[in-house]
Amino acid sequence: MTAYAPELLVHSWFNSDRPLLLAGLRGRVVVLAAFQVLCPNSIASGIPQAQRIYETFAPSDVAVIGLHATFEHHDAFSSAVLKAFVHEYRLKFPIAIDQPNPASPIPLTMERYKMRGTPSLVLIDRHGFVRKHTFGSVDDLRLGAEIGALVQETEVASVARSSAA
Amino acid sequence: MTAYAPELLVHSWFNSDRPLLLAGLRGRVVVLAAFQVLCPNSIASGIPQAQRIYETFAPSDVAVIGLHATFEHHDAFSSAVLKAFVHEYRLKFPIAIDQPNPASPIPLTMERYKMRGTPSLVLIDRHGFVRKHTFGSVDDLRLGAEIGALVQETEVASVARSSAA
Amino acid sequence: MTAYAPELLVHSWFNSDRPLLLAGLRGRVVVLAAFQVLCPNSIASGIPQAQRIYETFAPSDVAVIGLHATFEHHDAFSSAVLKAFVHEYRLKFPIAIDQPNPASPIPLTMERYKMRGTPSLVLIDRHGFVRKHTFGSVDDLRLGAEIGALVQETEVASVARSSAA
Amino acid sequence: MTAYAPELLVHSWFNSDRPLLLAGLRGRVVVLAAFQVLCPNSIASGIPQAQRIYETFAPSDVAVIGLHATFEHHDAFSSAVLKAFVHEYRLKFPIAIDQPNPASPIPLTMERYKMRGTPSLVLIDRHGFVRKHTFGSVDDLRLGAEIGALVQETEVASVARSSAA
Repeated sequence: MTAYAPELLVHSWFNSDRPLLLAGLRGRVVVLAAFQVLCPNSIASGIPQAQRIYETFAPSDVAVIGLHATFEHHDAFSSAVLKAFVHEYRLKFPIAIDQPNPASPIPLTMERYKMRGTPSLVLIDRHGFVRKHTFGSVDDLRLGAEIGALVQETEVASVARSSAA
Repeated sequence: MTAYAPELLVHSWFNSDRPLLLAGLRGRVVVLAAFQVLCPNSIASGIPQAQRIYETFAPSDVAVIGLHATFEHHDAFSSAVLKAFVHEYRLKFPIAIDQPNPASPIPLTMERYKMRGTPSLVLIDRHGFVRKHTFGSVDDLRLGAEIGALVQETEVASVARSSAA
Repeated sequence: MTAYAPELLVHSWFNSDRPLLLAGLRGRVVVLAAFQVLCPNSIASGIPQAQRIYETFAPSDVAVIGLHATFEHHDAFSSAVLKAFVHEYRLKFPIAIDQPNPASPIPLTMERYKMRGTPSLVLIDRHGFVRKHTFGSVDDLRLGAEIGALVQETEVASVARSSAA
Repeated sequence: MTAYAPELLVHSWFNSDRPLLLAGLRGRVVVLAAFQVLCPNSIASGIPQAQRIYETFAPSDVAVIGLHATFEHHDAFSSAVLKAFVHEYRLKFPIAIDQPNPASPIPLTMERYKMRGTPSLVLIDRHGFVRKHTFGSVDDLRLGAEIGALVQETEVASVARSSAA
């Protein structure tokens, strides 16, 4: 049932001097936090949690990526809105805008992940597999435990493999 | 030191089928709540408080008016952003967009009230005088007491006048 | 339907150098806040709200009185528990312990007011009449409005009476 | 710098049909949560967090133990107070009262762990070593990560050992 995480299809990165790909983040746990700047639950819960994750874990262990993804209000959103948002909320982790699909209201990354809305959170392990995918608010304690386990799992698993070799 | 409240200069009303003027609200206490959709403190504190005021007091006693006012990020904001915001946050009180000033980054109502930023809150009594003007978060208990006193003040003052007559 | 507030029957006052009686507080609005030190809702909501009321209103307008009242766990509570509680929570308003009733688990003041449990809040106006009586959490904005109106009501009512005289 | 966790010296267990010893919990991560029923920070932060930990992790992985520990107000506390507290807050994890020291105001377990006050939290790994010891509030996300890592660490470490054998 474990699925390989689909690659990002996005544009207009903030807090990153170049576009990021999941393929380039192998070896790290990735937290993909989908949000929408006018979604109350994204703003009250999803975004502050993503920022806390970014501040809690070592960048060499955990990469946090924000994804602005929405299937409505397309005329309201622009790169200027996201730029102002990132500035006003003093966010430090990399954030990208999901790639619009000319044939559908659902943008491409949101579509690939079959996200139900925002906030959505996807945990991807060091090998690129999706280990958790939620819609709505997520409890900090449980999420911390899951990220902590994913970080620890692979380190020790590697040790296990090399010990066994 | 009590000042007469300057009239609104705004456009694009939401939750009102026609433009509102303070002049048309005499006899009611007016709560003017200035905010900006990407201002963290407006979203966490100012806007939910304005909604609570709207839900707590009788419309015949207290009129709540939201004012989208900002001196920066002008390229980010449009009527479409405000429309989506009002929809997403399920706001029910009348909200207008402050009128841009072609000669200044500060829009006209914000300028007239000399607001320092968002959230700002202005309490106007039944006679049109400014009785409180704050910048930043405001305590619910104290604000409730002040609005309650303004509502009561004029009712009983009217009674006093008619009793005395 | 307005009822005269029954007098307090209590012991062991804290934060007051002498026993208080409602009869001695006429002319002030009284907030009677019943609580129990091991009641989660009293501690999370009732007690901090009573402290906020005490800090928000002028003592000449509003008197806050805490009442430790409980119909169970009688073997757990002593004056020493209340003394430690008042010290640990740095409470500054007068607090008394409800008078036990040897014939019933319900102490005397709780019985007289027919309180349903804790937290309970009773608002008494300047003339000694009960104007609000609630069980459970109370919204700060609405409560502030009600206290503010009671404070204002009587001041202006007095003005009305003297104007009319 | 890693220290072996001193054994508990306590009495009056709640939510456990027999006294517990750390020695009997080897193989599980132990969260020792010291609190005091009239300590505001214990009640607002420490106790609810202990309950969340108890609800989040499998009992076979993580054991939560509450410890009522205080160096003052000794005349206020009795088993009856703790019994009422456990009942009122609907706590489900095992809780014990620290053993008084006739020669000192500091009870025995608090003394052995050199706790600075309440709330204090001690994380003990599956082998009985203290891995974290804090005084004051602890962030849920970080604590979740640490417990999650301790749970994962030993499982995989055991795998590593058996793989290598």
